[in-house]
Amino acid sequence: MTVNLKNFLNPKIKMSKMGEFQELQPINGLEVSSVSADLYGDGRDDLSLFYFPEGANFGAIYTTSKITSANINWNLKIKRHFVKALMVNTQNANAFTGIKGAQGLKEVAHSLSKALTLKSSQTPKGVSEVIKITDLLFASTGVIGEDFPYVKIKNRIPELVKKLRIEQNKFVWFKTATAIMTTDTKPKLAYEECKIGNKLIKISGIAKGSGMIAPNMATMLAFIFTDANIPSIFLKAILKKVAATTFNAITVDGDTSTNDMVAIFSTGKAKNSKIYNVLDPKLQDFEKALQRLSLNLSKQIVVDGEGAKKFITINIVGARSTSMAKKIGFTIANSPLFKTAIAGEDPNWGRIIMAIGKSGENIVPHKLQVKIGDYLIVEQSKVAKDYNESEVKNYMKWDSITVEVNLNLGEAAFTVYTCDFTQEYININADYRN
Amino acid sequence: MTVNLKNFLNPKIKMSKMGEFQELQPINGLEVSSVSADLYGDGRDDLSLFYFPEGANFGAIYTTSKITSANINWNLKIKRHFVKALMVNTQNANAFTGIKGAQGLKEVAHSLSKALTLKSSQTPKGVSEVIKITDLLFASTGVIGEDFPYVKIKNRIPELVKKLRIEQNKFVWFKTATAIMTTDTKPKLAYEECKIGNKLIKISGIAKGSGMIAPNMATMLAFIFTDANIPSIFLKAILKKVAATTFNAITVDGDTSTNDMVAIFSTGKAKNSKIYNVLDPKLQDFEKALQRLSLNLSKQIVVDGEGAKKFITINIVGARSTSMAKKIGFTIANSPLFKTAIAGEDPNWGRIIMAIGKSGENIVPHKLQVKIGDYLIVEQSKVAKDYNESEVKNYMKWDSITVEVNLNLGEAAFTVYTCDFTQEYININADYRN
Repeated sequence: MTVNLKNFLNPKIKMSKMGEFQELQPINGLEVSSVSADLYGDGRDDLSLFYFPEGANFGAIYTTSKITSANINWNLKIKRHFVKALMVNTQNANAFTGIKGAQGLKEVAHSLSKALTLKSSQTPKGVSEVIKITDLLFASTGVIGEDFPYVKIKNRIPELVKKLRIEQNKFVWFKTATAIMTTDTKPKLAYEECKIGNKLIKISGIAKGSGMIAPNMATMLAFIFTDANIPSIFLKAILKKVAATTFNAITVDGDTSTNDMVAIFSTGKAKNSKIYNVLDPKLQDFEKALQRLSLNLSKQIVVDGEGAKKFITINIVGARSTSMAKKIGFTIANSPLFKTAIAGEDPNWGRIIMAIGKSGENIVPHKLQVKIGDYLIVEQSKVAKDYNESEVKNYMKWDSITVEVNLNLGEAAFTVYTCDFTQEYININADYRN
Repeated sequence: MTVNLKNFLNPKIKMSKMGEFQELQPINGLEVSSVSADLYGDGRDDLSLFYFPEGANFGAIYTTSKITSANINWNLKIKRHFVKALMVNTQNANAFTGIKGAQGLKEVAHSLSKALTLKSSQTPKGVSEVIKITDLLFASTGVIGEDFPYVKIKNRIPELVKKLRIEQNKFVWFKTATAIMTTDTKPKLAYEECKIGNKLIKISGIAKGSGMIAPNMATMLAFIFTDANIPSIFLKAILKKVAATTFNAITVDGDTSTNDMVAIFSTGKAKNSKIYNVLDPKLQDFEKALQRLSLNLSKQIVVDGEGAKKFITINIVGARSTSMAKKIGFTIANSPLFKTAIAGEDPNWGRIIMAIGKSGENIVPHKLQVKIGDYLIVEQSKVAKDYNESEVKNYMKWDSITVEVNLNLGEAAFTVYTCDFTQEYININADYRN
């Protein structure tokens, strides 16, 4: 897609010269590595490790699918407020792999705990410590139902641990964000800074392709790292709030992965004053920064939607409730007829009306106002008086299209981000495994 | 699509030599005509009239969309149990046309009532009668939001009424079924016979393209005519029951029209004994015949889905409730990832699992069994022991594919019919108005 990512970025953050990315900073208290376990058979990086030598608080949210991968099940099984490491593999989802998939993952966990325990005993500090398997989190993304390649993964753990680096410069971040990709065409990175009290806080985040784009290589993964000192319970609360309008406000085709995972880890190394309350005003700046970073990553995922040519923002305003606005926004965003119209650069507003109607929400047709860009298209149950189709047709040629639906029923609003539906989407997904 | 429609048809019913259609019979008490009101600008038939000189009982079901056309609103406004005529126009949906659309329709209704009243006074029988506008039903299908061409339609009413024919031979039925088409590539016709008591009952039905295929030319219309004598209230009850597993069990892309309408009309001319109870055993044979006819028309709609190359039957069995089975069936049927996999002839069963998971229904993963054709693919949360992908790949080349999901939780079942998602779908819908 030709959408300029720069438009989504915080202008205060320095851009990387390696592409349209923000230059990510190292997070104190984090070590990172990625290697190839030869899962793809072509030598590309497919296994990544995020290690917190002194541990990290964390909050995570997972797929809403009723069928979840062995890795997601592992993470959900134990209620943790503190972790030592996160391992991510691509190519294989470890979903619908039966008992063997869960056992394979356990073997991987044991190998990783041993290797990290050994590393811990070798640090100059000498803070030797046993890393338990319950201190480890796992994420995966790839084909569903194929045997989990746990032997290949286990065999690479010693090298993966050996390669851990304290200094995540921009190249390391780029390499890691690339290692977690599947069918993504670009790595997704974002960086923000903020203050908690008088301490400067760094937030570095990476993500991979929307869980709804790329079939059974299909998952949204996002991992965010900060040196802030925030209790896990508050991290989770803030992440949940922020995700509602970012990671959970995007859609490519309405499909949902068995493996989606978004997590935030805080090392505490910035040594900000202790937070006792999620409503602490000191957290406001952090929440805003996390919101910007998450929206940035979310938009990068949509922009990289398979076959996508256009970025679409759907603003639903004047709703009776946020859930009403969200339902209508997603019904439009997931309508194949709407998405193909956008691909065809056709201001075919009948399809927006159709989608609003089928949402099942109790709208009042004659109160509806629909805008495409700044152009009022529909009001009082008919096409707007000054509607000029050729003007709107010109607007539709842009690579970023905004649709606004005002229900004129209340004060609630919700924004959904999506992309168009092109022939390339069908090509990619019909011929995916050939 | 190359799917042989003959497979869907009652082998006892004679096939038309004009194509893969059943030969429809005339229904006593019905007169039919269709003409061109030049709505498309190319002279094709676009206006049809179904007239019941002595009236007809009827039952109808309409779109569930919250935004409905002026024509649907007209039909819903007055609770009728008896009608004199149904008029159908294509090309224009008369939806989101404001007050002007409703007023235009009223003018059409007045013209039609006058023309039919005049005709009634000219019959040899001399049973002169005033046809009220409330005796008339209207259906429409076409572009949303364009001015309703009521003047063009009004101008053609005299000719439309003049051309009414008592003898609907197979050519008349074919012409009428063609006149209600929009982007359909073939007319849809079906015929059944049954007995009520000792009387032979005829049922002739026509339909047009799925409301979810052809964007804002988008509507499912089905009109069924019988000479049975059945009270309107029972007709509606039987139609509703039958539609649940036929017209409401099909999907092409999950989109819903503002104009969907399925109606059945009974003229009573077969003079079967009076029915006092919807559970009357005498109605069983009729209900079965209506079920076959409706399923036949529904399958013809799916088969003619835009760009569709394959007909897909999704059987959900072993569910806790019908609504659970239906929800899961439709979630699979509407998943773009599943539909593109079928187009690619790829037994990519991970996408079926993904869709089951995202349905939100409380399934038990290790109880799930998934079959493609007769091949068991998945059980006990993993790929089946004897699964042979190359065998299933061969099966996927067929033009009619069956997927069975056994939830092993209960006794309820539901079958959904759909088609695959091809590049042609995108082509047709992206470039639709160009």
